[in-house]
Amino acid sequence: MTSGMAEDHRKPPMRDLLADAAFELFEEKGFEQTTVDDIVARAGVGRRSFFRYFPSKEDVVFPDHERCLDDMVAFLKTAADGTDLVEHACEATLLVARMYAERPERSLMRYRHIRDVPALRDHEHIVIRRYEHALAAFLREGFAFRPDGPLHAEIIAAAASAAHNHAVRTWLRNGATTDAVAAARTALASVRAAWGAPPTPAEPDDYVVVITRSRAPLQDVLHHVEHALARIAPADDAE
Amino acid sequence: MTSGMAEDHRKPPMRDLLADAAFELFEEKGFEQTTVDDIVARAGVGRRSFFRYFPSKEDVVFPDHERCLDDMVAFLKTAADGTDLVEHACEATLLVARMYAERPERSLMRYRHIRDVPALRDHEHIVIRRYEHALAAFLREGFAFRPDGPLHAEIIAAAASAAHNHAVRTWLRNGATTDAVAAARTALASVRAAWGAPPTPAEPDDYVVVITRSRAPLQDVLHHVEHALARIAPADDAE
Repeated sequence: MTSGMAEDHRKPPMRDLLADAAFELFEEKGFEQTTVDDIVARAGVGRRSFFRYFPSKEDVVFPDHERCLDDMVAFLKTAADGTDLVEHACEATLLVARMYAERPERSLMRYRHIRDVPALRDHEHIVIRRYEHALAAFLREGFAFRPDGPLHAEIIAAAASAAHNHAVRTWLRNGATTDAVAAARTALASVRAAWGAPPTPAEPDDYVVVITRSRAPLQDVLHHVEHALARIAPADDAE
Repeated sequence: MTSGMAEDHRKPPMRDLLADAAFELFEEKGFEQTTVDDIVARAGVGRRSFFRYFPSKEDVVFPDHERCLDDMVAFLKTAADGTDLVEHACEATLLVARMYAERPERSLMRYRHIRDVPALRDHEHIVIRRYEHALAAFLREGFAFRPDGPLHAEIIAAAASAAHNHAVRTWLRNGATTDAVAAARTALASVRAAWGAPPTPAEPDDYVVVITRSRAPLQDVLHHVEHALARIAPADDAE
């Protein structure tokens, strides 16, 4: 049995060779009419090589997802103390957009096949869920200090995935000609706005917020404002 | 071919008869060891009856999902002008929690089988996605006036589904002894808080919010507060 480590680096790696052959055939004959035997014949390798890389014909349609999931998990682990968890989770999803953007033609082909083949659509759901699970696991750990941490984590992971997936789907529907990563980042902004840490002002004590009944006596309101300002900005008195 | 309409109402409907037989067998032999032939033999009906109700053995594990999805779509259509869309979508997911709560023993059995059988877990994802799709379609239509309507719809549908599913999963994990609908409603509160319409105060002009730099000159702040109060509550002057 030859090992993947023995690959000749002047040739595309076996995984890519198989995926390229598969996508060629899917374009020519359709996904359902293509067999694994067709793919290995086109790639000029043995059947066992195929199954060493892909558990099924469905998986060759998503050849980079395993690597991307590994990259995502590795990236999530780089969070340091003080990292905004929601921000970090949103950044992690951009690795998926980047994977789509690296091979726009292949992403477009996949998009068309998924649209036409219900079994592939189901398979894609399951693949995509793995990213969401990785995000949720990361957020669950980070929000462990909150009583509602697990719920909070699930909601944000689902919202971030949905925003990302919507952006990538729209990018594909429009022909994959724009910047997928920028589109995903824009879509994630509303997840950040809803769930991320509020932006820290340069001087955290530089603002005071007052909420009052408008029918409260004016002098009382002014007194409370004065009091709040004095309490929050004692430095002014010292100057 | 006999029709479902001819069913004797003193006996459980055929769908339930088949599901009960199937769940009995899954408990006795496990999901994977049970065949459709076993199920129809136990239920005392023919093979064709099974496939009239369920496309596959996986589907009998979720016997009420089709009805529940229909109920959800019908409920979503009851939104009137002025209905808070996020609130309405959250209420719609409670129909699913209610379905789980109606048959807690069956829900617990299903939960155990899903945990143990990867094929069922995948099937559940696909079933659950249909609810999320129904919510997203409803919200997309409702948010059509917003430029980011489709994105907004996807995010909220995903967040509401995640909150609901987390509550139901937790309820199942803890033995299904508490109130699943109340738990789901509590979990959905943070989705409502993040995305729903802000609560309308009884008297909308009864509050004023002031945000000021704490280092601004005190007299200026007080002047602005006074001005804001006068502008927002002219009724006080008239009294």
